[in-house]
Amino acid sequence: MTWSEDALAYARGNGRRFEAELGAFIRFASVSAQPRHAGDTARCAVWLADRLTGIGLERVHVVQTPRHPIVCASWRGALRAPTVLIYGHYDVQPAEPLEEWRSPPFEPVVRGDDIYGRGASDNKGQMFVHVKAIESFLKTAGALPANVICLFEGEEEIGSPNLAFFLAVNRSKLKAECAVVSDMQIPGPDRPAITYALRGGLSVELEAQGPRRELHSGVFGGAVYNPLQALCEIIARLHDGHGRIAIPGFYDQVRQWDSRERAYMAEVGPSDVRMFRDAGATNAWGEPGYSLYERTTIRPALTVSGIVGGYQGAGVKAAIPTHAVAKLNFRLAPDQDPPEIARLFRKYVSRITPLGVQTRVRTLMLAKPALVDRTRPAMAAAARAYHEAFGAPAIFLRNGGTIPVVNLIHDTLEIPVVLMGFGLPDDRIHGPNEKFHLRNFHKGIETSIRFLAEMGARQAPSLRPRSSYRGSARAWVERQEERVA
Amino acid sequence: MTWSEDALAYARGNGRRFEAELGAFIRFASVSAQPRHAGDTARCAVWLADRLTGIGLERVHVVQTPRHPIVCASWRGALRAPTVLIYGHYDVQPAEPLEEWRSPPFEPVVRGDDIYGRGASDNKGQMFVHVKAIESFLKTAGALPANVICLFEGEEEIGSPNLAFFLAVNRSKLKAECAVVSDMQIPGPDRPAITYALRGGLSVELEAQGPRRELHSGVFGGAVYNPLQALCEIIARLHDGHGRIAIPGFYDQVRQWDSRERAYMAEVGPSDVRMFRDAGATNAWGEPGYSLYERTTIRPALTVSGIVGGYQGAGVKAAIPTHAVAKLNFRLAPDQDPPEIARLFRKYVSRITPLGVQTRVRTLMLAKPALVDRTRPAMAAAARAYHEAFGAPAIFLRNGGTIPVVNLIHDTLEIPVVLMGFGLPDDRIHGPNEKFHLRNFHKGIETSIRFLAEMGARQAPSLRPRSSYRGSARAWVERQEERVA
Repeated sequence: MTWSEDALAYARGNGRRFEAELGAFIRFASVSAQPRHAGDTARCAVWLADRLTGIGLERVHVVQTPRHPIVCASWRGALRAPTVLIYGHYDVQPAEPLEEWRSPPFEPVVRGDDIYGRGASDNKGQMFVHVKAIESFLKTAGALPANVICLFEGEEEIGSPNLAFFLAVNRSKLKAECAVVSDMQIPGPDRPAITYALRGGLSVELEAQGPRRELHSGVFGGAVYNPLQALCEIIARLHDGHGRIAIPGFYDQVRQWDSRERAYMAEVGPSDVRMFRDAGATNAWGEPGYSLYERTTIRPALTVSGIVGGYQGAGVKAAIPTHAVAKLNFRLAPDQDPPEIARLFRKYVSRITPLGVQTRVRTLMLAKPALVDRTRPAMAAAARAYHEAFGAPAIFLRNGGTIPVVNLIHDTLEIPVVLMGFGLPDDRIHGPNEKFHLRNFHKGIETSIRFLAEMGARQAPSLRPRSSYRGSARAWVERQEERVA
Repeated sequence: MTWSEDALAYARGNGRRFEAELGAFIRFASVSAQPRHAGDTARCAVWLADRLTGIGLERVHVVQTPRHPIVCASWRGALRAPTVLIYGHYDVQPAEPLEEWRSPPFEPVVRGDDIYGRGASDNKGQMFVHVKAIESFLKTAGALPANVICLFEGEEEIGSPNLAFFLAVNRSKLKAECAVVSDMQIPGPDRPAITYALRGGLSVELEAQGPRRELHSGVFGGAVYNPLQALCEIIARLHDGHGRIAIPGFYDQVRQWDSRERAYMAEVGPSDVRMFRDAGATNAWGEPGYSLYERTTIRPALTVSGIVGGYQGAGVKAAIPTHAVAKLNFRLAPDQDPPEIARLFRKYVSRITPLGVQTRVRTLMLAKPALVDRTRPAMAAAARAYHEAFGAPAIFLRNGGTIPVVNLIHDTLEIPVVLMGFGLPDDRIHGPNEKFHLRNFHKGIETSIRFLAEMGARQAPSLRPRSSYRGSARAWVERQEERVA
């Protein structure tokens, strides 16, 4: 038996225990956006670090940041083999609306072949795949076929505000041949896929400010511009009547793809019918001239994700509110530049803001679109590993989502990022009743085992082990001081 | 000395005691909307009934309803004089936010010329004016110059759910020449005014329904119609670019006023500058061709008073929501018919709802506009009474608000309703630190005394006294049974 076969046998023999451990992981309400869950998030980090120590990883660190810690670990025993950086995040989206969950979001349950809970798929289940693959090697061979660095952050769902700094100051310690990120979906349980493109993101809050105090709608209705109405009118002017975004210059930098690329996309990508069904929608919408797969990948989009304005209780309150706020979420296509789009948006909003209302735009998150060269050796290794584990060839897909960390890793560490997803389209990530398909969990572990073996078969210059990661609270304080100086 | 002079002298001599009694009245936390104050509301009704008995009124009843009682009393000794129905309400708005009160809302205090407390102006102080006027006659002459019926409800602030039934079943017992409602403001302490028009109201909830489950804005953004965006687009199409309501047929029934009426309004009504200042606004808005006073009285208006849709917490949630709801509040001008406007609104919304989204309209409240003929004798009597009491001529003003009870009384009893306000624009009704100007309290009592004397000078057919009011809890139960049968 080879190393890999021992590891695969171990993974199969411990499958039930792996599932139970994933359940314990999901049980932490590590909601990074909600201050009341800061303690849960911190405890989750410590629990994760203990698991990494327990499976035999070295140099395990819980690195404090100004908000939620980064958990790091590595194994550097394969002196002539390349190094793989495995990125994941242990923080999760808010679970609200709670009343729409069939079972409580942080009390995971298995129904059929799925485990339900917030973070089951995004990202606890998918990142745990690699932890269990590493365990399967270390508990059998006592070694890994390639060197690994685990980098698990707790701030992905709030835009990774502290990761860039961490990557920058630890750049040399994080040197690797490639990074692996498993935070996306494949088309089906028997249809593995490697994501090679992600949309960028720009999240903003748009606030409309009206009268200084709330006004009685009987006394003043019809004489004063209502900021909530103004906000709706501005939002209505963000799209034209055909589903195209109406901000002047918005499409100027969007890359046009040749017919070969679009033909490949049409061949391997989901059909419109398939996307309808996945969305539970009854009608198409959006930019004419593109398939739904294209509209959600190579074309940008703008989503109004929330509005807060006026009275929200039961019944009637007859008042003109003082202000209203909308949350807007842009998805950007290559080669749109997020700060430039933010500038165009501000300019347009300023132009269409009616007299009597003031508007203000706050940028909450910016992320560039990402594109990975499909011909890189690590991409081929991933494709072979998928094929062996899933018994079907892997296709290359684009994804309409945004994983800012992909660009961050690519640009800071200058390495390709292999987007090796194990989620499914119906996982309901970010929504109620999120789940992860347990068969994908186990196939994912096998894929990770085979991928590490594939990577180990490649030669690379030996690396000296490094001592500890910089980036303690102290370092951040110093950095902050530099900034204000 | 005439009757009136005796009564006026009594009122002056007992002014301090009247203020103390008003304080005792305000001390009851008769918040009709809050179940925890049901006991306070019931005790307030009994206290009020005791006062009415104490001053010499007859047939005093505390009539139970399914929620809060109606207090009734009458005096029918003036056989050849007309009857005046005095309406008021002893319930008050919730006092929250409590932390914004300078003194506790139900521990009234006098600061300067004002008495502070929840309900001081709306409506305890204003209705008590009439109680003290009646007392001043009965304790001096032992009689009133006109017959009176007092009708004080405890549910005005929750929409008077049981008043219509009470008026209908007691229609013949409540027969009167006119009704008096003192539940509004005059422009200033030396500027008496009679309200002769109120706008109607129509409150609706508009819901837009999109995908069956919340969708990730990365995965589906650009391919699915967002119900929150659709809701904004629909709301944006409710007004044209000039501040006019864009619902077809909406203005068809709006009465056009001749130049004489508009000249009178321009002469006595608030200027645009005054209304700006009161609103704390910086720019005018609304239908062209009308002053702000006209826009808020003889012209209808539509206020978006609240939106609930999507994520409303801190930061970003990247999701397309399943549905969104807007609360809309129409103010209607004579002769718009609320059910007809509701029909036009539904029809228009249905027409402009985009494919891929479903909309639903729920009607929450309907009230017809009210208009009182300024040439009615009771209006002239009120004007003379104000002039004598305040030393300044009373003007006739329109009010943009809605008091459903005015129509209820007008339509059920078929009598004119004299809107004789004693509040001031800065009374902060419904808000923290509500107050009532004590000089207006005393001038109000004088106005009421003079008004009753004026009415008594008019002849009317004699009325036979009636025994008791129908509408006990038993009657309601029977009525409910009829409905379900």
